Amino acid sequence: MDPVKLKLTIAYDGAGYAGWQTQASGLAVQEVVEKAIESVFGARHAIHGSSRTDAGVHARGMAAHLEIPRERFTMPLRKFCLAINAHLPPDVRVMAAKRVPGSFHARFGAKGKQYRYLVYTHLCHDPLLRGQAWLVTHKLDLPAMRAAAAHIVGKHDFAAFAGSRHEKRENTVRTVTTCDIRRAGRLFTFIIEGDGFLYRMCRSIVGTLVQVGLGKYSADEIPGMLAGKDRRLSGMSAPAHGLVLWKVFY
Amino acid sequence: MDPVKLKLTIAYDGAGYAGWQTQASGLAVQEVVEKAIESVFGARHAIHGSSRTDAGVHARGMAAHLEIPRERFTMPLRKFCLAINAHLPPDVRVMAAKRVPGSFHARFGAKGKQYRYLVYTHLCHDPLLRGQAWLVTHKLDLPAMRAAAAHIVGKHDFAAFAGSRHEKRENTVRTVTTCDIRRAGRLFTFIIEGDGFLYRMCRSIVGTLVQVGLGKYSADEIPGMLAGKDRRLSGMSAPAHGLVLWKVFY
Repeated sequence: MDPVKLKLTIAYDGAGYAGWQTQASGLAVQEVVEKAIESVFGARHAIHGSSRTDAGVHARGMAAHLEIPRERFTMPLRKFCLAINAHLPPDVRVMAAKRVPGSFHARFGAKGKQYRYLVYTHLCHDPLLRGQAWLVTHKLDLPAMRAAAAHIVGKHDFAAFAGSRHEKRENTVRTVTTCDIRRAGRLFTFIIEGDGFLYRMCRSIVGTLVQVGLGKYSADEIPGMLAGKDRRLSGMSAPAHGLVLWKVFY
Repeated sequence: MDPVKLKLTIAYDGAGYAGWQTQASGLAVQEVVEKAIESVFGARHAIHGSSRTDAGVHARGMAAHLEIPRERFTMPLRKFCLAINAHLPPDVRVMAAKRVPGSFHARFGAKGKQYRYLVYTHLCHDPLLRGQAWLVTHKLDLPAMRAAAAHIVGKHDFAAFAGSRHEKRENTVRTVTTCDIRRAGRLFTFIIEGDGFLYRMCRSIVGTLVQVGLGKYSADEIPGMLAGKDRRLSGMSAPAHGLVLWKVFY
């Protein structure tokens, strides 16, 4: 009998975790979810995430898949989330679970992803946003940031916006379909959507756009950064705690 | 020489506090701010808040006043927030400070207040909202809640929506000028504005409106609750952690 294959939508507050993927140092979200699944089903079943979020990065819509032998999967599907969540800490939740065909793969099947990044601008942080927004204590030039963001949209070699840890031989061409900036008072929301993202790419883009907003770079310098394909040419990497993996498209 | 009188705008994450006002049990936000002021100015100066928020309730715009002897106030005003914030924990911040005339009083001078309340509806909580929204695990009927909210707006005796701890002899007539409900997906924001609020009034209103949304009461029952002037006639009190004192008007 074929195993039951499920697609999970997982949300987490990344503050307490060393990222999504299980690794040598620090607790990973993946590990916490696998342990909860083990508590419910009595055996370890690996889950495969769509993305490897970094330490401190949050998620509202991480996608993952797993397979559970049919004979173990005796509960109705609608009880699955409740059962798993009962074994998870409050900063991690399985928001949804659905049956998918055996061919589904959370990582290789992903057609695109949306990330959101929050920036709060004031002389001090808003205590209610302190875990989820980057505090920038100077005014940001929104038209300049939007002009810079327009240069990010499109199919480009994003090597200049990839963290040094990315694989050197990896193909660094990606297509960014959306790079919008919304403002509500002191709060800026960066919405970045694309077919895939290199290591630290979102944070490098946001960090560079914010530096455009601060006047350190002009929007016109973005095409040159992209063309140079060298991380040293672009701006800073924005801190992890402002970033949320918002949605994965299939 | 007249002392320097300041109006402060204070924001806090209420999770770690026994409310705004200093009391016998638990740490109060007021106390934490007074200690920071003492650290900066070398002596204790009482601060007077516009409202007494309950344990666990948050604020984005608590207003307060204080007086500092002119001879002690040697710093430029624009340095005041930075100096005080350096002595505050990250869950409390003085967002703004301005000079006000000697006649200003944060509590007696307040012309109105706006509170906001967040309700998240899903089978489980969003980990990123868990400290700032009430999780309701059933669907809410928005048109019914809006019809009920319309009955709240106006000048009424709100005794039926006042927590039992309020002073019995107190005048319980208040004017609610706004009672709006906005929806963005699974998140509902209740916006309540009025000339003043009784003890637990906002939380009783939101709790009752949510119970209308769940079908426990009909919107048409609100006028009868108000007319009955008895707390037992209205609905439940919504939990503290969904409530934010948003703004105080002068």
